Amino acid sequence: MISIRPFNRRSILAALFVGSFCGWPLPSLQAQTADPLPSWNEGSSKQAIVEFVARVTHQGGSDFVPPSLRIAVFDNDGTLWAEHPMYVQLAFALDRVNVMAPQHPEWKDKQPFKAALEGDIKTLAESGERGLGELILATHTGITSSAFEGIVTNWLATARHPQFNRPYTQLVYQPMLELLDYLRANDFKTFIASGGGIEFMRPWAEQVYGVPPEQVIGSSIKTKFEMRHGRPELFRLPEVNFIDDKSGKPVGIHEHIGRRPIAAFGNSDGDLEMLQWTTMGGGPSFGLIVHHTDAEREYAYDRNTPVGRLDKGLEAASMNKWTVVDMKKDWRVIFPAETR
Amino acid sequence: MISIRPFNRRSILAALFVGSFCGWPLPSLQAQTADPLPSWNEGSSKQAIVEFVARVTHQGGSDFVPPSLRIAVFDNDGTLWAEHPMYVQLAFALDRVNVMAPQHPEWKDKQPFKAALEGDIKTLAESGERGLGELILATHTGITSSAFEGIVTNWLATARHPQFNRPYTQLVYQPMLELLDYLRANDFKTFIASGGGIEFMRPWAEQVYGVPPEQVIGSSIKTKFEMRHGRPELFRLPEVNFIDDKSGKPVGIHEHIGRRPIAAFGNSDGDLEMLQWTTMGGGPSFGLIVHHTDAEREYAYDRNTPVGRLDKGLEAASMNKWTVVDMKKDWRVIFPAETR
Repeated sequence: MISIRPFNRRSILAALFVGSFCGWPLPSLQAQTADPLPSWNEGSSKQAIVEFVARVTHQGGSDFVPPSLRIAVFDNDGTLWAEHPMYVQLAFALDRVNVMAPQHPEWKDKQPFKAALEGDIKTLAESGERGLGELILATHTGITSSAFEGIVTNWLATARHPQFNRPYTQLVYQPMLELLDYLRANDFKTFIASGGGIEFMRPWAEQVYGVPPEQVIGSSIKTKFEMRHGRPELFRLPEVNFIDDKSGKPVGIHEHIGRRPIAAFGNSDGDLEMLQWTTMGGGPSFGLIVHHTDAEREYAYDRNTPVGRLDKGLEAASMNKWTVVDMKKDWRVIFPAETR
Repeated sequence: MISIRPFNRRSILAALFVGSFCGWPLPSLQAQTADPLPSWNEGSSKQAIVEFVARVTHQGGSDFVPPSLRIAVFDNDGTLWAEHPMYVQLAFALDRVNVMAPQHPEWKDKQPFKAALEGDIKTLAESGERGLGELILATHTGITSSAFEGIVTNWLATARHPQFNRPYTQLVYQPMLELLDYLRANDFKTFIASGGGIEFMRPWAEQVYGVPPEQVIGSSIKTKFEMRHGRPELFRLPEVNFIDDKSGKPVGIHEHIGRRPIAAFGNSDGDLEMLQWTTMGGGPSFGLIVHHTDAEREYAYDRNTPVGRLDKGLEAASMNKWTVVDMKKDWRVIFPAETR
């Protein structure tokens, strides 16, 4: 059975035009060797993080959590790197359509490929989840896992963000890189739990985030093992295996980790169930939502965007006492380049 | 859709009667503090292990492998613990049928439950994969993941092996425990990749093997996230999610780990593809098969058993230069109790 479903359930209607380029001011950074989170401004968000870590690492304290149970999960798109004006993986898929077009002459007359080739964003968006799912499956499968890894690696080395004109892997959030390091320095094991493709993230997550492949959880397509020409290969099949979004996130986390995290970091309604699973099971826990409020240095969006929509999550945050990061106010810098 | 498939594809025809009890001689153990593998007799198997580890950890050597790539995968049933006279998880399922029977009066007249309740092993075996799959799903699902964890933990605390009359978790192989420790001492990350249920192993694998839940890979059933009475829960559904056996093993390993292991340890044809995937990709690698040759201290079986059948694996071992452990000859002791 060939099942056509998109990796990401969110619609991209209008997504392709969200956001506007702005140069960013380079803040003057003081040497702050004692501060593990120098890109975080002093305030309630930073304070909540530091207090939680102090609480669960304080041996003998009532909220002490032994290191083996210090599991932290991070969404990727919009939480660790920029997701506007469109998910990076969608930009990858569109580029792949162009690269693969010579081998697929039928695409010239077949939607949604025709629209992708012609840059007809309106028609592309109208093709909806089904159309985008077809794009993803056509461009992400039919090859071995190791070949796909090479393609992703090469693409990321050359592709540039349409507005910031930088490699996508440089558009990761400096404060979140520091947070990952800070948690690991306190014996947390850090995992990514993303709606994005697991094999789209693994090739670079270790180098960029310090998260090894075995700690990356994401959406996946089915693979098949075969001996071919005397070599063992894993082939990527055009069939969705798992969608790691919304209520899928706790399922993916449980399947991969097998115990409940004590800290979860997200930015959209797709992270709601992950935050609930993490923080509502009893015991000390921490939930955090990155609220994109900085139209000048990055983007400002919440309820009215189809890419990384944050609506129910804001209400749940106030009800559950999750920390909501006000990007504009809480983050001294956004991207690593600003610290150089 | 409710899909009925067994966790383990192997038939148990005759499986329930395989093996015979034998007392074991207590070997006199010398103090061998310098030897990381004291339960391994000197010989080609031990030598192959030690030489491989020396090779990949020798900085500057041509076969050096950096620690982050030192991934080792272990089958469980028959490789780390005893699998005869029947898979431990099947014994668990049969006990569960009896415990759950009062809530299922219909089972008295419905196969394969009727046979399980009456101890009618012949009829049970004749129900085949489909029948055993029904048993597993009926006894392993319909509850939350955390409730299932509690049931497994309680069962293992009281259940005894029918012949050795010990808890199953004491019927793990001492030489393999030492091997796990030895690899970890050399910066290997050790994973379990078993045909058994992932949630059947996770509750005890850390304590017994030193392998944390996030490093256990296995067969799984589907789970569903739900908020119930204001609490987030994962419910186990009566539907198979993944069978981590035979050609499923490389798939499961790739899904969970995301890179190719450099060492694989198995004992049956169910491990063949895992060993191929690990050892035939180029680069330094190590494959090992535990051959059950010790009818006196444990069991002797290979080609003619339905439980842990080893046939193609023996041929592949000689072709691919995998190490074949002759349990009787290579292992000074079998179970931890013998070292006390």
